[in-house]
Amino acid sequence: MHRKFPRIFGHEAAGVVESVGDGVEDLVPGDHVIPIFTGECRECVYCGSDKTNLCGTYRVNPFKSTMTSDGGTRFAVVDASSGERQPVYHFLNTSTFAEYTVLDAACAVKVHPKAPLEKMCLLSCGISTGVGAAWNTANVSTGSTVAVFGLGAVGLAVAEGARLRGAARIIGVDINPEKFTKGKEMGVTDFIDSKACGKPVHEVIREMTDGGVDYSFECTGINDVLREAFLSTHDGWGLTVVLGIHATPKMMPLHPMELFDGRRITGCAFGDFKGKSQLPDLVDKCINGEVNINFDGFITHKLPFSDINKAFQLLEEGKSLRCLLNF
Amino acid sequence: MHRKFPRIFGHEAAGVVESVGDGVEDLVPGDHVIPIFTGECRECVYCGSDKTNLCGTYRVNPFKSTMTSDGGTRFAVVDASSGERQPVYHFLNTSTFAEYTVLDAACAVKVHPKAPLEKMCLLSCGISTGVGAAWNTANVSTGSTVAVFGLGAVGLAVAEGARLRGAARIIGVDINPEKFTKGKEMGVTDFIDSKACGKPVHEVIREMTDGGVDYSFECTGINDVLREAFLSTHDGWGLTVVLGIHATPKMMPLHPMELFDGRRITGCAFGDFKGKSQLPDLVDKCINGEVNINFDGFITHKLPFSDINKAFQLLEEGKSLRCLLNF
Repeated sequence: MHRKFPRIFGHEAAGVVESVGDGVEDLVPGDHVIPIFTGECRECVYCGSDKTNLCGTYRVNPFKSTMTSDGGTRFAVVDASSGERQPVYHFLNTSTFAEYTVLDAACAVKVHPKAPLEKMCLLSCGISTGVGAAWNTANVSTGSTVAVFGLGAVGLAVAEGARLRGAARIIGVDINPEKFTKGKEMGVTDFIDSKACGKPVHEVIREMTDGGVDYSFECTGINDVLREAFLSTHDGWGLTVVLGIHATPKMMPLHPMELFDGRRITGCAFGDFKGKSQLPDLVDKCINGEVNINFDGFITHKLPFSDINKAFQLLEEGKSLRCLLNF
Repeated sequence: MHRKFPRIFGHEAAGVVESVGDGVEDLVPGDHVIPIFTGECRECVYCGSDKTNLCGTYRVNPFKSTMTSDGGTRFAVVDASSGERQPVYHFLNTSTFAEYTVLDAACAVKVHPKAPLEKMCLLSCGISTGVGAAWNTANVSTGSTVAVFGLGAVGLAVAEGARLRGAARIIGVDINPEKFTKGKEMGVTDFIDSKACGKPVHEVIREMTDGGVDYSFECTGINDVLREAFLSTHDGWGLTVVLGIHATPKMMPLHPMELFDGRRITGCAFGDFKGKSQLPDLVDKCINGEVNINFDGFITHKLPFSDINKAFQLLEEGKSLRCLLNF
């Protein structure tokens, strides 16, 4: 068993630095920071490359359960009477379902103190991933056509990124037609209810777009949807970006010869943003109005941290994409 | 049954225009031409795009058995006594195993008359595909590392393309160690006998290259080799180009989550060259010495066309990569 418990989950947040350890040079107490699960050590071959945001030390690894390489935990439950220490494990370099957490400095992005933390926390995963997939991974161009499979927070962030790039048409695909209402705010121009369209979604999209979209984004983690997303792009130049977490052992539902039709497929982690290097500038641009990401559109509820279980309940009932927790 | 017989096979050649039909404006009798199986109509949305060389009308289609859309054949066996006409079908827009063939003008590339046709025929598929995969599809950079899986003519042409781009290391992988002798001429610097290396080839390559090559090329059409080629690239930025014809129904042997390691995979037809637009310039550069493709290295035998069956025999015996037929 690689996954250790008990564990503090959570990977999206924003906060204020309380204290720093020895050797931390770029952060001081009081700094406003966004935790990132794909850290940036700035020393490895990956951090030195402009082709990837996967740090050699701090990349996504759900099996990593402690911050440090010596296996010791930074969290513990201590028995008041005996003083016995029960370790509590770390999650995705962040562990943000907590009032206080401990992070490697490589996983904390210092942002402008004027940036509203209750919105900036969305850059900690959802918005960065989706917007970055459209901007960095796909490089969506003005006037292009886009299909987004799965209109959860990440899918909507993709739409938002495509909208900001001036995509001519952004087709949202979901099994829940109510998602279209929210989607419209994020630039979704057309909606396909994949349960009701009566034929494979890629056929519908090809008909709507004279052969297929320029870019498709798979944000569901469902194997069959991945195939539909792939086939919904235009042959010759279509690009599918996979963002969904595919948790089953099912292999890619594509035949090698299908690559010869000129459709491409690629993965995307954290929107291909290098967190520490690129997010501060993005935050600055959001503050000064140069970039107009619709942060508010992603916020449906605001709850105190003590109501975290109510937040999970809302998610389960499908009443929210995600809940903002005030600390 | 989609594949019709009898049929004139063959798709690599070079020749001289004997006559042209009505409406052909860019070719006249006497022109030296290279037939291309991926034609270029220059009118469709694909030909108008700089992102693909897949013409909408003349792309690769092994099931297409006639030149024209009306289904009539341009070849026939005519019974001398009865005058009865038995149709003979066309192959890959070219049908070049013949002293004379008929092509759409979109599939004939006019080249400089000084270019030696007996070498230029190699641009009709093998060299264009391999060199173009390195130049156009992968855009191999100076000092980079490359692995080529399968050292047949296409694999060697990939190596040749990588060599001309100044790749620092070109690792050839094959089950036949004799291929390394020929491979050295084309820039192959290291050889792995995949039958003898005792562990998965991708592990050997990762050890040799400190984590993996920058580019790998799959030139065998074997499903398991495709996976090895994919895994042999460096995570974060590795690119695998698939050139082999995968004739089995086996799906891609990759898991969607493996895309999150930053390895990419793409197909490549005819080296992503737009034949009529780009090959004449390449031929000019080969003549004036600006580009030094080692054409001679690809020629192992020269045989008269009447010995075509002997040529097939040599191929079958593994004594030649391909045979040059003089008409």
